[in-house]
Amino acid sequence: MDLMQQFRDMRKKQEAYSYVMSVVGWDSQTEAPRGTFPRRADMLGLISAELFKLSTSQEYQDAVYGLFERLDELDDLSAREIKRAKKELDKVVKIPENEYVEYGKLVNLSQRLWEDAKANNDWDSFKGNLAKLIEFNRKFVKYYDPVSPAYNVLLDDFEEGMTMELYDEFFGTLKRDLVPFVRQVLKEGKPLKNDFTLNSFDPEKQKEFCDYLIDVLDFNRDHGLMKESVHPFTWNTHPSDVRFTTRYLENFVFSSIFAAIHELGHATYEQQVDPKWTDTELSGGASMGVHESQSRFYENVLGRSKAFWEAHYPKFQELFPEETKGISLDDFHRATNKVEASFIRVEADELTYPMHIMIRYEIERMLFSDELEVDQLPEVWNQKMVEYLGIEPKTDSEGVLQDVHWSAGLYGYFPTYALGSAYAAQFYYKMKEDLDIDELVRTNNIKAINAWLQEHIHQYGKSKTPKELLLDVTGEEFDPQYYVKYLKEKYSALYL
Amino acid sequence: MDLMQQFRDMRKKQEAYSYVMSVVGWDSQTEAPRGTFPRRADMLGLISAELFKLSTSQEYQDAVYGLFERLDELDDLSAREIKRAKKELDKVVKIPENEYVEYGKLVNLSQRLWEDAKANNDWDSFKGNLAKLIEFNRKFVKYYDPVSPAYNVLLDDFEEGMTMELYDEFFGTLKRDLVPFVRQVLKEGKPLKNDFTLNSFDPEKQKEFCDYLIDVLDFNRDHGLMKESVHPFTWNTHPSDVRFTTRYLENFVFSSIFAAIHELGHATYEQQVDPKWTDTELSGGASMGVHESQSRFYENVLGRSKAFWEAHYPKFQELFPEETKGISLDDFHRATNKVEASFIRVEADELTYPMHIMIRYEIERMLFSDELEVDQLPEVWNQKMVEYLGIEPKTDSEGVLQDVHWSAGLYGYFPTYALGSAYAAQFYYKMKEDLDIDELVRTNNIKAINAWLQEHIHQYGKSKTPKELLLDVTGEEFDPQYYVKYLKEKYSALYL
Repeated sequence: MDLMQQFRDMRKKQEAYSYVMSVVGWDSQTEAPRGTFPRRADMLGLISAELFKLSTSQEYQDAVYGLFERLDELDDLSAREIKRAKKELDKVVKIPENEYVEYGKLVNLSQRLWEDAKANNDWDSFKGNLAKLIEFNRKFVKYYDPVSPAYNVLLDDFEEGMTMELYDEFFGTLKRDLVPFVRQVLKEGKPLKNDFTLNSFDPEKQKEFCDYLIDVLDFNRDHGLMKESVHPFTWNTHPSDVRFTTRYLENFVFSSIFAAIHELGHATYEQQVDPKWTDTELSGGASMGVHESQSRFYENVLGRSKAFWEAHYPKFQELFPEETKGISLDDFHRATNKVEASFIRVEADELTYPMHIMIRYEIERMLFSDELEVDQLPEVWNQKMVEYLGIEPKTDSEGVLQDVHWSAGLYGYFPTYALGSAYAAQFYYKMKEDLDIDELVRTNNIKAINAWLQEHIHQYGKSKTPKELLLDVTGEEFDPQYYVKYLKEKYSALYL
Repeated sequence: MDLMQQFRDMRKKQEAYSYVMSVVGWDSQTEAPRGTFPRRADMLGLISAELFKLSTSQEYQDAVYGLFERLDELDDLSAREIKRAKKELDKVVKIPENEYVEYGKLVNLSQRLWEDAKANNDWDSFKGNLAKLIEFNRKFVKYYDPVSPAYNVLLDDFEEGMTMELYDEFFGTLKRDLVPFVRQVLKEGKPLKNDFTLNSFDPEKQKEFCDYLIDVLDFNRDHGLMKESVHPFTWNTHPSDVRFTTRYLENFVFSSIFAAIHELGHATYEQQVDPKWTDTELSGGASMGVHESQSRFYENVLGRSKAFWEAHYPKFQELFPEETKGISLDDFHRATNKVEASFIRVEADELTYPMHIMIRYEIERMLFSDELEVDQLPEVWNQKMVEYLGIEPKTDSEGVLQDVHWSAGLYGYFPTYALGSAYAAQFYYKMKEDLDIDELVRTNNIKAINAWLQEHIHQYGKSKTPKELLLDVTGEEFDPQYYVKYLKEKYSALYL
């Protein structure tokens, strides 16, 4: 169809703009000196204005909406593309321009306000903006979906197909089946020494170890690299160009290692997406949840397994002979799985992590259902921390103010983090039927695991929805019991 | 004037495209993995097509040519901008599109042919393309300047105001006054040991030393950085973002040090251009020759001076205690100024370097004046090597095939390299009247030298032509005798 080709050509040109802006972003986040900011903002402003023009042009709208009206004439995948394109377009063109601009300013301002509020433990200075941001989001979703509950629209934006109903079931399961277990581990768990991990580890040697891990995990260096940044992240523009970062903290050696493995998981996914989806709406990882399932699989299932350290603790000892003196393989492996009730989500361990997400989901859900006022957030937050983790934040900075997301206007995003871990567990039990994972890890044959993931998950990009992927890979619908089972098996063995 | 504002707005948008493409280029030359090339080429192709459209649009042409017709209504600097813009525009729009495209393909092909020809010492496989490239260039310049001799137009393209007449005088002076001196030094010069510089020097330590030099030379790290690449270069998009590279060869420690100082010279220039020229045709360094004068000044005048190593040899010794055992400050300083007849321009020392350039200038001049056939190049090249340096290349790969320039369609470019050194010498004698350079270098006060260069040269960007700069800074026209004097003084003291 001619219109489809026009659509693709226009889209590809937009990709080129996104591409150059992404490279500028990578540069800015990994090496550009401090003083380069104003000029970059100026130049990127002009380029992104051009991209905005292209991606909202009448010509592009005619193509997308025209094709959307003829969805039944398109093959399945083209139809899926057009649905995605239409959804994205709606989000921009259905919102009145003045409101869109006003919201952009509000987000900018709110992020600065939040930074100060967090630094000064000053919730009151931020809460007004938070209320406004939420109001904007409620209003905006109505423009492109006047029917569904606002929070459902947001949840679906971040993870296609997800709703409050589904998440309620998910988090309900965790609340019922996991919370008591977590509290048991925290209370009765065998003590574990990990003090040694907070000693000084030469950052250069940490770097050498992370570089070694790149080959261990069989990451393709022809199409990717690892670099440093303040906050670790994965960056990609195409399967042939996927990069990630970690950071080296002298007194927190696990930070560099597990951030590297985590990001490498995201990056391997992107490298293994079939390049045939390039320039279509179906390129890149399937969803945030599925992406997180991969990073968590590499980080927690592989990277924190006994088998992994049986294979690689010797290398670590070789690099850090003094620092590992008297630390057995067993000590070391257990230290990588230290469980602890803590206030800060991004520092939480694998077992307590979903508790942090549950709190955020429940609060967002109540906010968007008018069951909670912004004013009440700190109190509710702290109550839930006590309920799920048995500890109470002493300040809002280590409580309700800790995350950047809400100040950036992101609601419905958090639950994908926990969903990812749950997907990972369900994939894991399926993979175990096909592969002897421990043996492959122990014998340093991650290639076979990567190949399995490519065959069953990675290659498809967004051509399957998360729901379809789960079903095709595991033969079942999403089932959070796998996650509960995985955590209980693993942490019972380690702690009880 | 309204049209002037329109011109500026259009130009600024073009700058934004150049900016993002430059950042992609920086990434590609300094870190992008090998396998990222095809996607990048694809994406950049689309963006550069957009830029081409903008920079040749009817609207832009109307503005530039419209303003050019009313030059007398503009202030001096605006007039200068419009003249530059018109010249650039002519080069693109006055050449028939099909020839422009054909030429682009020819250049691409020729560069690959040249690479192979150089690798295989196969002049015959390349000479046909070289002849075609030269023909295209002759034809092209006629489109935008039907009157002047073709080579004059090319010389002026690379260095505003330069002509065969002026270069003949320059190189004539060198031939008369410098060649005999060079031959005398090569024949009678005191022997000098520099074997130790070819021993192994840990690249990590070299890096540490180069990093130290950044602060020695007072380079602004808030607006710049140093990185590695195969071929050292300087990169800039704005005075607030200027970067350079060097390379670390284990058995050639001077390569990293002097490449770093050289590029840092270029980079300091760009950092010190007044930001008020941003987005105008007058931003950035004045010309290729003036740029090279700055890099050579930092590299040769400062970096290879006795005073410099009096200040910094101790640091070098500290990093390389074993490697410098038994090497006195005097030995070391002399080694940095080792003179030697050699075949390869890019490896030549300060004294013999202009001989290499003279050969290229004389050949280009004859080619464009029909005094020489492409066929005769290898023979003429070798004769001139014997005449000026007393050595004869054994292969064309170390002779006429060594440089990339001609295969890239660059004629008239080479002479700016020698001109830069000559400018540097003239600036140097002027600076010596104002500053005690040796004392400032010895006491590690390069800041004062940077400030002098900023005040007299750097700040002006392209708002002064090279000719005006020379006159304003030194009170005299360009005079190559300063260059001869500088080299004779320096190398007599070292060698005779």
